[in-house]
Amino acid sequence: MTDTARPAIRLMPKADARAIRWGAPWVYADNLVTDRRTRAMAPGTLAVLQDAERQEMALVAVNPASKIMARIIDRDPAAVVDHDWFARRLARALSLRARLYDAPFYRLIHAEADGLPGVVIDRFGDAAVIQPNAAWAEAHLDMLVAALVEVTGVSTVLKNAAGRARSLEGLDDESKVLIGTMPDAPVPVVMNGATYMADLAGGQKTGLFYDQRENQAFVQRLAAEARVLDVFSHVGGFGLAALAGGASHVTCVDASAPALDLAARGAEAMGQGAASFATRRGDAFETMTALEDEGLHFDLVVCDPPAFAPSKQALEAGLRAYEKVARAGARLVAPEGGYLALCSCSHAATLEKFRNACLRGIGRAGRAAQIIHTGEAGPDHPLHPQLAESGYLKAVIFRVLPA
Amino acid sequence: MTDTARPAIRLMPKADARAIRWGAPWVYADNLVTDRRTRAMAPGTLAVLQDAERQEMALVAVNPASKIMARIIDRDPAAVVDHDWFARRLARALSLRARLYDAPFYRLIHAEADGLPGVVIDRFGDAAVIQPNAAWAEAHLDMLVAALVEVTGVSTVLKNAAGRARSLEGLDDESKVLIGTMPDAPVPVVMNGATYMADLAGGQKTGLFYDQRENQAFVQRLAAEARVLDVFSHVGGFGLAALAGGASHVTCVDASAPALDLAARGAEAMGQGAASFATRRGDAFETMTALEDEGLHFDLVVCDPPAFAPSKQALEAGLRAYEKVARAGARLVAPEGGYLALCSCSHAATLEKFRNACLRGIGRAGRAAQIIHTGEAGPDHPLHPQLAESGYLKAVIFRVLPA
Repeated sequence: MTDTARPAIRLMPKADARAIRWGAPWVYADNLVTDRRTRAMAPGTLAVLQDAERQEMALVAVNPASKIMARIIDRDPAAVVDHDWFARRLARALSLRARLYDAPFYRLIHAEADGLPGVVIDRFGDAAVIQPNAAWAEAHLDMLVAALVEVTGVSTVLKNAAGRARSLEGLDDESKVLIGTMPDAPVPVVMNGATYMADLAGGQKTGLFYDQRENQAFVQRLAAEARVLDVFSHVGGFGLAALAGGASHVTCVDASAPALDLAARGAEAMGQGAASFATRRGDAFETMTALEDEGLHFDLVVCDPPAFAPSKQALEAGLRAYEKVARAGARLVAPEGGYLALCSCSHAATLEKFRNACLRGIGRAGRAAQIIHTGEAGPDHPLHPQLAESGYLKAVIFRVLPA
Repeated sequence: MTDTARPAIRLMPKADARAIRWGAPWVYADNLVTDRRTRAMAPGTLAVLQDAERQEMALVAVNPASKIMARIIDRDPAAVVDHDWFARRLARALSLRARLYDAPFYRLIHAEADGLPGVVIDRFGDAAVIQPNAAWAEAHLDMLVAALVEVTGVSTVLKNAAGRARSLEGLDDESKVLIGTMPDAPVPVVMNGATYMADLAGGQKTGLFYDQRENQAFVQRLAAEARVLDVFSHVGGFGLAALAGGASHVTCVDASAPALDLAARGAEAMGQGAASFATRRGDAFETMTALEDEGLHFDLVVCDPPAFAPSKQALEAGLRAYEKVARAGARLVAPEGGYLALCSCSHAATLEKFRNACLRGIGRAGRAAQIIHTGEAGPDHPLHPQLAESGYLKAVIFRVLPA
């Protein structure tokens, strides 16, 4: 594909061309001159972005159906997006991960920050799960997958189409096997000395999130001999890390039975049994109340809930929910003192707002605390410099003082 | 000391009593009713803080000479500040550090966050260096030191009175040996597998800062086989960590010959010689320009300068200096790509402002980058929940893309 006659798309005179020259990765529809021709472009069409004076600025992917109407694909307007182009981007991303991790289990491509806008690829050893969440990636999927196989040597590539972003791009939600065969058993993933079971067939709900790895490593340092409670545990992200860190007992709480089953299988793979590991299925708030009613206390409590504030509209209600989690969690920390790790994956809740909600909750539980660590997503989730405010993940780790 | 008849000090009606009830650690002079009696209080006097209705709120230490006229010492207005009181605060702080670190080398007391306002204690094995930076701590120093010896078992206690904060409290700058004898040689400190030489006699300039330990651990993960440049290296904080992480060669740049001598002695203690370690004494900017003129490039460049923006007045000039550092550092990163770690210990520069200054500098060097890690001071520097915005240390680690 040599794209000799690429269409052009032009910035409005009012648009901030300087921001794009400085590296902004997106151009919104209302900053672009749109006419019948641009509106008729097939989603994912590669085009040359021009400034208002028709100077060429960059190669972009156009999706007339998306608010983000143009995504910068290459700063070189003449770049050729072929197999080698994808291979270079993938190799660049791989070299960072290869430096950071002992084993090939990580997020390999984190979208814009890794130069592949809207594309997420998680690697599980010989298998990769790709989320082509932008139209251009869907349109170039065969080429991207071929380059992925070449650069990484993976033998299985799965497409996960469950991402919310796909509908904003007008894409379907049909997940499938692209290369190889669906693994018929969960894939064991070792992180921080713990073994996690990732069910790639089950998709997001029982797969594995790599983004908390550094925060799990920090919490692990607090876990020796500790009684640990991991609420919203999913497949045991924090709980199994604590177990690997020498916790005396870990209880995982989640609403999903399949997730808890995977957590238990992870503990089993680590040689841990009922003496040191338990699960409780149920609503997180109800279960925390029940634990309190039973008079139970923990040395380390972790709450890593789903996004309570997924949008700006949901921010106030979300912050109240985070406060409620913090209050319930703090009440379960042992009266002689302990640790409380509270996480948010809500874009809309800034660190300051989230931290304040947590502190209100801890205060309402009648406890006082120090902040000993603030963490974000790990380095296999790099930030694009112009989207640096977009870090969604926050983990604040409190030491709860003796009551 | 039973303090049976403590003086009282009262909030003005306009003062925000709620903030104090929520945990604010300081009361400024203009929020307190001051008269001849309060102004005559000896610096460091313990008093009972009352709200405007004369309800007792907390035990405070009063310093009529300081803008921070009252510091909350204990939420219990009847608390007795005696040997046992100090021992409890110290033991509480010690239990966190003992959980986090294998060896007794850390910041033991981080002021307000550890319940000892204005007091900083760094531990170097059997020696401790105490900075009593508030009048109440100076007034209770004998008791504090006796409790410190009891709780930690240290045999040497040095007083460092060089802190800028002491003059704001009307305290002298006379450092001295309080217990034991001054070590006659630098103390070896092992962190992240590197050996640092801490010259406790030389004070801040050639001592050791513990606050970058976690950021040094992160940078170390990028260092295998790398050519590393550590600018503003002090005694080799990042450089020796990189060496321990398998760097092929490390160059430390600093203006201080004694600091570089200690860095070299650290490398020597690690069994590394001239083949893998070098120092260059000189002004950081001039040296970076000289390195560039010599055509040298590095796979990993670290710049951890002194506070360029120590006050709000100095913010704009400070940000320009950070930009200049970033530009010079980015120009020294290898054209095939590498890593750039940029740090700020300026209170006045927020993370966002600092990061933007760095990105401008990197852009002006003609390079593009991803942000792969953002770090702060380590967990032996906990944050007081009401002073959480006060985190002074920022480390932003960039991956500089191929030119």
